[in-house]
Amino acid sequence: MTYAFLKGHGTENDFVLLPDHDGSVHGALSAERVRALCDRRAGIGGDGVLRVIRTSVVEEVALRPSRNHPDAEWFMDYRNADGSLAEMCGNGIRVFALHLYDEGLVPADEPVRIGTRDGVKTVTREGDRFSADLGPARILGETKVSVGDRSWPAIHVDMGNPHAVVMVDDLVEAGRLYDEPSYDEGVYPDGVNIEFVLRRGMDHLAMRVHERGSGETRSCGTGACAAAVTAAGDGPGRWRVDVPGGELEVSRDEAGHVYLTGPALIVARGTTDL
Amino acid sequence: MTYAFLKGHGTENDFVLLPDHDGSVHGALSAERVRALCDRRAGIGGDGVLRVIRTSVVEEVALRPSRNHPDAEWFMDYRNADGSLAEMCGNGIRVFALHLYDEGLVPADEPVRIGTRDGVKTVTREGDRFSADLGPARILGETKVSVGDRSWPAIHVDMGNPHAVVMVDDLVEAGRLYDEPSYDEGVYPDGVNIEFVLRRGMDHLAMRVHERGSGETRSCGTGACAAAVTAAGDGPGRWRVDVPGGELEVSRDEAGHVYLTGPALIVARGTTDL
Repeated sequence: MTYAFLKGHGTENDFVLLPDHDGSVHGALSAERVRALCDRRAGIGGDGVLRVIRTSVVEEVALRPSRNHPDAEWFMDYRNADGSLAEMCGNGIRVFALHLYDEGLVPADEPVRIGTRDGVKTVTREGDRFSADLGPARILGETKVSVGDRSWPAIHVDMGNPHAVVMVDDLVEAGRLYDEPSYDEGVYPDGVNIEFVLRRGMDHLAMRVHERGSGETRSCGTGACAAAVTAAGDGPGRWRVDVPGGELEVSRDEAGHVYLTGPALIVARGTTDL
Repeated sequence: MTYAFLKGHGTENDFVLLPDHDGSVHGALSAERVRALCDRRAGIGGDGVLRVIRTSVVEEVALRPSRNHPDAEWFMDYRNADGSLAEMCGNGIRVFALHLYDEGLVPADEPVRIGTRDGVKTVTREGDRFSADLGPARILGETKVSVGDRSWPAIHVDMGNPHAVVMVDDLVEAGRLYDEPSYDEGVYPDGVNIEFVLRRGMDHLAMRVHERGSGETRSCGTGACAAAVTAAGDGPGRWRVDVPGGELEVSRDEAGHVYLTGPALIVARGTTDL
């Protein structure tokens, strides 16, 4: 079977997009196919897959759609590189929105509402950048992350998907250590994204991230938001978050909604039979 | 500028193919574009680029074509992932030949002669496998390879491109050590591919490889040949060489020609503006 794909990225968090508007191309979309597509040597390569599917058909074919999205025409069916499901992807949703605009699938110059397993998210285009309203962050308490003999205290943050945020003094050292991090499986039964975060200034952070199902990636959008709200404390604000693949902006409004802003690019499009 | 590409691999040594039959698409093909294409996060991703160009025009546009190829219609303009030039690529030439057959650019079921910076190579299709005559190996003496504090004796083999073959007892240990190998720059002024080779039987080897310009790869075809001729001594024979990305066969005939046989796959095709 030969089918269409695109490849894109947001701050070098990269994705294979699969247009499948009525769900007839990929049906349930097997974990095996996701792994084959994301394989960086034998496949196309990516941190995950973004299936582009209509909300009206997603319940028939996609696992765990979980919520109704009456006002979102399109659903982002996101899978991690290992084939597992994920609720949301903050970098992915910008690339997803770019694709919808590029293809004329949504009106140009209007914010677009996109269904996800974490509910409907609104994305606004601002020139060549995209801003996604990720809703409120929930800070759920303290936990612990370990690598080998070393442990760090961490903050458990829910951004729709689960995070453990660790404040560190040295990103290189943390990066070397966190190849195989372990965490409290009681707190994170479905795994966790772990952010190692360095404070560079009042409103300026840098981080590296280990994503469940993908290993270290060049960027994680919801992770940048989790890092910012952990480092910032309460109230509205605007923070710059440097990631290995670029720069993101996180802001929070008076109502507590967290917004992630950054670039999105489509770099290739074609067909595959993977 | 939007242009065509394909992605393929041989034993998971992966390549971006650029059809550019008359050289008008890419001209000299800049190192910058090669790096952008091979970037595994921001680009398409690959261990190298294979430009598909007619021999009749290659001297006008490609750097260092170096030899005439009057009887080879097509030239494999191979670049490493870092943009540097390379003479030959044993896995790449199988993928290149598959593409020529797939597109009807050469007669089906006849061996195809392909121009390279190491001269003309003949590739024969055998079902879904391809066998390339890489000519004679030249064993040029002893040298040394180091990683950090550790050194190994190595054999300098010329397979059209330069190799250092190190016999080891443990591929995992060697693999961990060779992130940044160093070598005698007097012996290898243009860099070297380093093979760490484990003997598994009389005619059976396993290896890991560090390729100049690409780092560790899942396979190196000329490296498998260098490993086999180093481990085998003189005379004809046939060897199995296990690489992380699959299995290759190396044979040598009475005349001393070395043949590399293995699979080739095209997994995606499309357009990019990288």
